[in-house]
Amino acid sequence: MSGWPRNRPPADSEPDHSRWHDSDREAGFEIDDNFSRFSQIDDMFSRAFCDPSIASDDTRGFFDSYRMQAAPRRGEGFAQRDFALRNAAWSVSDMVSARRNAAGKREGFTSPIEIDTPIVDDPLPIDDSHTFTAELKGIARLLGASLVGIADHDQRWVYSARVDIRDFSETENSLPDDISHVIVLGHAMDADLVDTYPSALAGASTGLEYSHEAAISIQLASYIRNLGYQAIPSMNDTGLVIPLAIKAGLGEYGRNQMLLTREFGPRLRFSKIYTSLPLIADQPRIMGIGEYCKVCTKCAAACPPKALPFGEATAQPLNRSNISGVKKWTADCEKCFGYWAKLKTDCAICMRVCPFNRDYRKLSSRVWRALALSRFRKIALWWDKHRPTGARIRAGHWWRNIAS
Amino acid sequence: MSGWPRNRPPADSEPDHSRWHDSDREAGFEIDDNFSRFSQIDDMFSRAFCDPSIASDDTRGFFDSYRMQAAPRRGEGFAQRDFALRNAAWSVSDMVSARRNAAGKREGFTSPIEIDTPIVDDPLPIDDSHTFTAELKGIARLLGASLVGIADHDQRWVYSARVDIRDFSETENSLPDDISHVIVLGHAMDADLVDTYPSALAGASTGLEYSHEAAISIQLASYIRNLGYQAIPSMNDTGLVIPLAIKAGLGEYGRNQMLLTREFGPRLRFSKIYTSLPLIADQPRIMGIGEYCKVCTKCAAACPPKALPFGEATAQPLNRSNISGVKKWTADCEKCFGYWAKLKTDCAICMRVCPFNRDYRKLSSRVWRALALSRFRKIALWWDKHRPTGARIRAGHWWRNIAS
Repeated sequence: MSGWPRNRPPADSEPDHSRWHDSDREAGFEIDDNFSRFSQIDDMFSRAFCDPSIASDDTRGFFDSYRMQAAPRRGEGFAQRDFALRNAAWSVSDMVSARRNAAGKREGFTSPIEIDTPIVDDPLPIDDSHTFTAELKGIARLLGASLVGIADHDQRWVYSARVDIRDFSETENSLPDDISHVIVLGHAMDADLVDTYPSALAGASTGLEYSHEAAISIQLASYIRNLGYQAIPSMNDTGLVIPLAIKAGLGEYGRNQMLLTREFGPRLRFSKIYTSLPLIADQPRIMGIGEYCKVCTKCAAACPPKALPFGEATAQPLNRSNISGVKKWTADCEKCFGYWAKLKTDCAICMRVCPFNRDYRKLSSRVWRALALSRFRKIALWWDKHRPTGARIRAGHWWRNIAS
Repeated sequence: MSGWPRNRPPADSEPDHSRWHDSDREAGFEIDDNFSRFSQIDDMFSRAFCDPSIASDDTRGFFDSYRMQAAPRRGEGFAQRDFALRNAAWSVSDMVSARRNAAGKREGFTSPIEIDTPIVDDPLPIDDSHTFTAELKGIARLLGASLVGIADHDQRWVYSARVDIRDFSETENSLPDDISHVIVLGHAMDADLVDTYPSALAGASTGLEYSHEAAISIQLASYIRNLGYQAIPSMNDTGLVIPLAIKAGLGEYGRNQMLLTREFGPRLRFSKIYTSLPLIADQPRIMGIGEYCKVCTKCAAACPPKALPFGEATAQPLNRSNISGVKKWTADCEKCFGYWAKLKTDCAICMRVCPFNRDYRKLSSRVWRALALSRFRKIALWWDKHRPTGARIRAGHWWRNIAS
């Protein structure tokens, strides 16, 4: 288990839970004395390169498949066109993340996106933060964000260290002192592609949103800098986004390890902007999604490598890739990523089958949701058992459909 | 007039009109013996740098305004937030176009976008070009294109030379020999922003679509290369797009110098992919838009610098920035760009006021269009005169609206 659990030296800034007491309670966070900030070296994507217990021919084949010369060709959903579309979908994100590899950085993944836009000298006076915050959310939507919320900046969710991809050493992960808020952006994934999980084709839904994240976070950060404020566009780098998204009122944490939203269920990715703008933070919104997850184990049952928990939320990590001291449903990320490596593409069956993954433009979906978020949630459970959502669509069907 | 008209040496490949005789007739093209391929050095954006009759403090101020430190702040629609949003909207396009400036290239503007994706060795066998073409169009829409059409590659519309931005010399503009088709992508602009022309704010609608063009053309070209075929993503560089868009059946040429489409009127930008894929080209679609333009001069009347023609289409250029030998409505680009330079932002009043710039989700718009494209077009003209489309919306109203 390569040195886990480790005795880490105390971080420069010890987590200051007391400051967040009321806010944590509103958001339903339960954090105990074993809490320590997560280090990016413990992420599966780091361990796949530097932890001999994880790195294998399968994990190397997984990463290699994102270059077509090494992508497998093996039948429906995993043929040349499927990998071709998946890899093309990633190409804007790839272009951004490849720029500073020689300096040990994968922008958007191990370090924030570096943008050329300078912070202008004459900051826009902001007299009315409420109106300005509403306006900024409108701009985020104009740029293409599906959801947007504002959280106070919280050092606890910033990685204690980032990785240098040259040697996978831990290196300093710092943000400017003037960061006060985090703008959390949700990027809805293509529903039809998600329906084809597991397949290389389905991975295009992931790549498309990483490419959208890169573009939209660059544009929004550029806008803020043009107004004279600090703004750092961030994807998976720098810190965890789910606690911030919950604080920002975008949704609740689910058994499948994803943020479950009212609007799209789990069918989104998230990016964020660390900023010094004087914004008004949103309130957490506990709607009862977590209560539903307590009685539903559909995702856990559907997970081929059995990486998801059937039991209750716990603060106990399963291995070094789980944060410690935070009570939540905890997955075995080693099993999860091991399955990805075998498939040579990302898996999100747990997103596809989640009962909250519905098209809420339909009245029946809205009725189901109203039940699921009420004390009649067991009726919703029964409904989804007899008319289940998220049946797998064959990749061949998707290709015939896109041509029509 | 700095050497115009010039005696150019014959181009390597003389234009071969005979090959295109039937296709030109179907598309309504009238091309005479004075035709010569357009050189990018004659484009206003080149001349603004290298033609002393054009370059001025105003044109320098125009280009400088795309960096915020030099952007003016002067009231509604031209304040800091307006330039901030416009410049941010451009930022993805800027990121792409800045990469190889040191080599004399502005990718997407003076040379094609260079992408890292290699063309894989094992091309996908394409047995059924009809189905494959339909599938590829579906992929283009999945990636975010609003319209897509296919034209045969036509050397006549490739610039005879491109410019080197280090010294604004003419330099070789060549495409690989195996290019057979051009995929033309339409990118619809935000209707509410377009309603605020002229303003720096409205320029965000332009910047947003250049950024989308860059991302989508990179992704689509990457997909094609992953299938083993040549694909070169192109924005304003390399060649003219409007003749190709007409051949691809996307619309007709309008008095306002724009392609007028059935779906969005003139409210789009266009990008293109030069490719070796064995595609099925679309047929031109002459719906009667040009016939309407013959009786309508709304754009010409609304143009502040009077750059648009009130009269008939002609093959006679007004100055070196017009292509010669192609019968069409011809604008005075010097007057047009002179007005942009004064405003310090792009102007598209002629797009805003065009009667075809309508929301066709509305029944009344569809009824108007049916009339405009019929022999009762004068009723549509009368209708638009009494209930005109495209009234200017104040930028302040847009900002209040985005915050609500």
